[in-house]
Amino acid sequence: MLSESIRPSRTPATEADLKLFKLIEDQLYTAAISDALDELGYRSQAMREFIRPLSPDDRFAGWARTLSYADVFHIPPAPYATEIEAIDSILPGEVIVASTAGSVQNAPWGELLSTAARARGARGAVIDGLVRDVKKIQCMGFPVFARGIKPVDSKGRGTIIDYNVPVECAGARISPGDLIVADYDGVIAVPSEILPSVIQMASEKVAKENGSRAELMAGAYLKDVFAKYGVL
Amino acid sequence: MLSESIRPSRTPATEADLKLFKLIEDQLYTAAISDALDELGYRSQAMREFIRPLSPDDRFAGWARTLSYADVFHIPPAPYATEIEAIDSILPGEVIVASTAGSVQNAPWGELLSTAARARGARGAVIDGLVRDVKKIQCMGFPVFARGIKPVDSKGRGTIIDYNVPVECAGARISPGDLIVADYDGVIAVPSEILPSVIQMASEKVAKENGSRAELMAGAYLKDVFAKYGVL
Amino acid sequence: MLSESIRPSRTPATEADLKLFKLIEDQLYTAAISDALDELGYRSQAMREFIRPLSPDDRFAGWARTLSYADVFHIPPAPYATEIEAIDSILPGEVIVASTAGSVQNAPWGELLSTAARARGARGAVIDGLVRDVKKIQCMGFPVFARGIKPVDSKGRGTIIDYNVPVECAGARISPGDLIVADYDGVIAVPSEILPSVIQMASEKVAKENGSRAELMAGAYLKDVFAKYGVL
Amino acid sequence: MLSESIRPSRTPATEADLKLFKLIEDQLYTAAISDALDELGYRSQAMREFIRPLSPDDRFAGWARTLSYADVFHIPPAPYATEIEAIDSILPGEVIVASTAGSVQNAPWGELLSTAARARGARGAVIDGLVRDVKKIQCMGFPVFARGIKPVDSKGRGTIIDYNVPVECAGARISPGDLIVADYDGVIAVPSEILPSVIQMASEKVAKENGSRAELMAGAYLKDVFAKYGVL
Amino acid sequence: MLSESIRPSRTPATEADLKLFKLIEDQLYTAAISDALDELGYRSQAMREFIRPLSPDDRFAGWARTLSYADVFHIPPAPYATEIEAIDSILPGEVIVASTAGSVQNAPWGELLSTAARARGARGAVIDGLVRDVKKIQCMGFPVFARGIKPVDSKGRGTIIDYNVPVECAGARISPGDLIVADYDGVIAVPSEILPSVIQMASEKVAKENGSRAELMAGAYLKDVFAKYGVL
Amino acid sequence: MLSESIRPSRTPATEADLKLFKLIEDQLYTAAISDALDELGYRSQAMREFIRPLSPDDRFAGWARTLSYADVFHIPPAPYATEIEAIDSILPGEVIVASTAGSVQNAPWGELLSTAARARGARGAVIDGLVRDVKKIQCMGFPVFARGIKPVDSKGRGTIIDYNVPVECAGARISPGDLIVADYDGVIAVPSEILPSVIQMASEKVAKENGSRAELMAGAYLKDVFAKYGVL
Repeated sequence: MLSESIRPSRTPATEADLKLFKLIEDQLYTAAISDALDELGYRSQAMREFIRPLSPDDRFAGWARTLSYADVFHIPPAPYATEIEAIDSILPGEVIVASTAGSVQNAPWGELLSTAARARGARGAVIDGLVRDVKKIQCMGFPVFARGIKPVDSKGRGTIIDYNVPVECAGARISPGDLIVADYDGVIAVPSEILPSVIQMASEKVAKENGSRAELMAGAYLKDVFAKYGVL
Repeated sequence: MLSESIRPSRTPATEADLKLFKLIEDQLYTAAISDALDELGYRSQAMREFIRPLSPDDRFAGWARTLSYADVFHIPPAPYATEIEAIDSILPGEVIVASTAGSVQNAPWGELLSTAARARGARGAVIDGLVRDVKKIQCMGFPVFARGIKPVDSKGRGTIIDYNVPVECAGARISPGDLIVADYDGVIAVPSEILPSVIQMASEKVAKENGSRAELMAGAYLKDVFAKYGVL
Repeated sequence: MLSESIRPSRTPATEADLKLFKLIEDQLYTAAISDALDELGYRSQAMREFIRPLSPDDRFAGWARTLSYADVFHIPPAPYATEIEAIDSILPGEVIVASTAGSVQNAPWGELLSTAARARGARGAVIDGLVRDVKKIQCMGFPVFARGIKPVDSKGRGTIIDYNVPVECAGARISPGDLIVADYDGVIAVPSEILPSVIQMASEKVAKENGSRAELMAGAYLKDVFAKYGVL
Repeated sequence: MLSESIRPSRTPATEADLKLFKLIEDQLYTAAISDALDELGYRSQAMREFIRPLSPDDRFAGWARTLSYADVFHIPPAPYATEIEAIDSILPGEVIVASTAGSVQNAPWGELLSTAARARGARGAVIDGLVRDVKKIQCMGFPVFARGIKPVDSKGRGTIIDYNVPVECAGARISPGDLIVADYDGVIAVPSEILPSVIQMASEKVAKENGSRAELMAGAYLKDVFAKYGVL
Repeated sequence: MLSESIRPSRTPATEADLKLFKLIEDQLYTAAISDALDELGYRSQAMREFIRPLSPDDRFAGWARTLSYADVFHIPPAPYATEIEAIDSILPGEVIVASTAGSVQNAPWGELLSTAARARGARGAVIDGLVRDVKKIQCMGFPVFARGIKPVDSKGRGTIIDYNVPVECAGARISPGDLIVADYDGVIAVPSEILPSVIQMASEKVAKENGSRAELMAGAYLKDVFAKYGVL
Repeated sequence: MLSESIRPSRTPATEADLKLFKLIEDQLYTAAISDALDELGYRSQAMREFIRPLSPDDRFAGWARTLSYADVFHIPPAPYATEIEAIDSILPGEVIVASTAGSVQNAPWGELLSTAARARGARGAVIDGLVRDVKKIQCMGFPVFARGIKPVDSKGRGTIIDYNVPVECAGARISPGDLIVADYDGVIAVPSEILPSVIQMASEKVAKENGSRAELMAGAYLKDVFAKYGVL
């Protein structure tokens, strides 16, 4: 049932891409990016609050590689074939974005897939479902955001039904190639067509917040600070 | 991704099958069948309470024809192809049992599918999801049990991912070829290997309840009636 | 674990009680009674919206006879003993109020218990759980309010753990001996110590609403009608 | 905190409006309108499945008059003032669309508000919350769709915080002046800017379905019927 | 829609207040205070389990300053005006208690509000809703308890509808001026009229638990220890 | 209502038992054990994802000692009697497995019960409910897995209704005497009759994963590694 790729010209991240990811990870954050998206009228780009990092310092930016899982109640022939194909074709600079329709019976992600994905160049993963091998994933330092933790395998519980298609992940619609940014405040998706404006506006927001914070810490009243900087 | 049929020798219902369905619909009921299944140790065969008939007198018995749906967030090429194939291959005496992983975004069943299914000989449908065209379905007299009602189409919201495979429908595992019995109390599945015992035991239960009821209505105490008939 | 009765002097309903029940069923309704309870500061006496009558014309008033059920996962010795004792000791004028901690695995009420309860003089039942044999209960005309419908028996799924104790039923705390009033708008409990005031105030509310309704139907504006009658 | 009206030129329904409402109520239905909205890319216009009519034949079309309620936990001064103002200013041809943030503690709608709203010319109401006085509302024949039923008043439980502003009602964003259509399949909102196209496309859909239905009833296979009519 | 203050004589915390807060933070804990409240018949003073501290060592005591938020679906004129007024009027010794009706679309609290609140003398915050800027809040050492984390702003998602009024926060009714105590076990509110008794009883409970713990650690049986100390 | 023990020959853990627990804690983990159970057809042995350790390094293995709690709404006579009996009869090598029907009103476990249980030889506890005194439990190093945290006592909120009976804990059926294994990935139960096979198969799984991981880290493709080791 695989549809043809929605991002036909998928290519490995360029040097410029990697520089951009680093800039975002070092100087921006999801809250500032969310405010920029709001200003541009993109108000549903943040994932729900139940997607949390496995380790408190997990953070990343990268292009979305989407996977779509569904629950099953038998073991289909060749249960892992499409999943292996999807993982082995990950490109450097991508991040896995896996939807499971919110399944709580299936834990489709774990240490071995994390290892395989990183070997292909993945920068992180967001799983709207359960994961296992969490201590091992923490040890390898691969950043994973997930809905919960359970020790079960996916065999006979879930199967990949498509990849490189639009998915809904924790309440946000994600298209292949969206920029995914994840940090302790959550996960947010930036459609590629507005990426430059978003980066610029988020940078300006950060600057204003720095000014606002300094004055508030010095004891100023919110009313005056808001009048001056216009951010809250 | 279609797996080979789990009920390899699927055939249209025989005369004996039809007589059995009629017997069940006329003389038995889901509560008595559930008690028989309990006695045999099959204690998870009843669907959850949120599956309700569209019309209060809907009831049926028949062999399960399973469909498995998943949510989608784009319109795949040929979105209806497998669904059409699944419906057109329904055999006389079957009942549709559709799982959607509990989706509330998709209404995969309506009047036209009901009409098509009945034309093939389907005796009813159980949809663990939403349905539409409900007044028209009520008018045509085709019994449908569902999780809820919403006027949206399935195109771009859900897709069939497999059929003739085990599914979970409203909390019960259903295999192709299970006997499905549905009435106002709910929906229950009888695995074919224990069907004769279940019919026999349910019939005996009905007889005992008739005795018990008569004495209770005449004013007897529950303690005495239970001592005599052993049913509650 | 049975505690001693909290309503030590439980006695069959008197002639006066029965007259009161009839008056309430004929001339008052739960909405007016709820407003009276609000005025007296008793603001949590109405059950949650998911408790619905099995038949649209079900309604009753009577003294609460509470039952408390819990889920079990094995068949205890003498599984029905306490339940039989509880039902056989129902007094004329009582209504069953059964809590299950919101269980959706257990259907502790059905036709035979309805028949037995009515034979003892019960005026109706409120089950914060699932019920079965619904068509038969509708036929016998015994009013039952419940959380849902499922065809399974309670044996090996639930057990009565106490009776004649305070329970929480659909979000409301119910004490043995509370007056329970149920109609199409829901179920409400009146503590016995404030019963006379509540009846009086509810009757006055009904009179005011009759005046207000007549003027609104004649085209008056809400502002003027509210200024005159003080009810909405 | 009232914002200025978002539909500044609100006016009573014209003759043409009333003719349109009648046409929709008689010849169209929410499922066909939903398909037209889908075609135009408006895919989130249908309310969730838990909004149900109080009476099975309730149906209406009209312009949205939005109300927004929030829970409170004390009785504010003049608790009904804004609500009275909102109801008394309803214009002929409008339908009430009330959001409560999904509150289950508050029943902000009942018989008297129904009577007052109808006296002003309201064609129906959709309450994403609880209602009471349901039997009386059924008797007066005013169509109301709601989330549930509970006998409590709104005083000290909820308050109107604004009206004539965009609201979210049962999962759909509704703006003042949207066309609201409600029937047994649910409730759907049509933004005014696309109304003519939607009516036209829905009418065509109805015609196609009539053809498709006739052939399916005559025994045709879904594959052939879908190839001919393109509807399912 | 602001009601007049429910705690008319709000004043900055006195020296005695600050000494009390310190005593509670150093020597008591929410579990002991909860037991004292239980003894006095105040059994619904603890917030639900989903309110958790952002940092494991967050703890505080202070007078409740309540805020009440509601979801919005447009940007009202002057969206922050009342919020700024509410924050700028915080008094030393207060703690913010914000209700959102359990909203998961709005994150009304973040670093800048934390900074502003602390500048006014706030001792901490409890947000029955989502928060953002969590790493920065952790760094500044301001203790915040919340329902969850999401990077979105409140503009166009929620608005303050009132402050200094009773609210329901995570299942507990909180009045302005209640003593709020928060630690790793959760959050609890002590009405001011019973504060002295509660402090005294909680202190005695702590002493008994110390005795009980010592004997249990030495190997005593629970039966004997409970007989001696009467605490569990 | 205590039923006779289901594990009649309960005895303190032997030297061999303790060696087994140590082996499991040091060399196996719940994910590998879950895969072994899957292979043997035991596919519902893992608890739901909402059961989490109080401390990240909590882990244990031991025989299940089950407790079953239900909510109450009054204080029964001798409220703690059965609970004390249950705790004082814990045998060395056991782990507490407490079900509460998912109650969120009751916190039946805390520091003193942890202390008492450890004094009897308990190796840990799994509470499908709320707990309190969490910082103190963390300090004493007793591993506890729970559904959530709230500072309230169980008196008047919950009561033990039975022990040493089958329970459902966080979605898994647990029988007295099952081997319970808990680590950061969750909690899993191994029925005693298949214990030797499970240990053997899990050990083999661990070995294969070690090979697979090494090759993936060296850059091998998943397809090749899966072909060689057959694990994912």
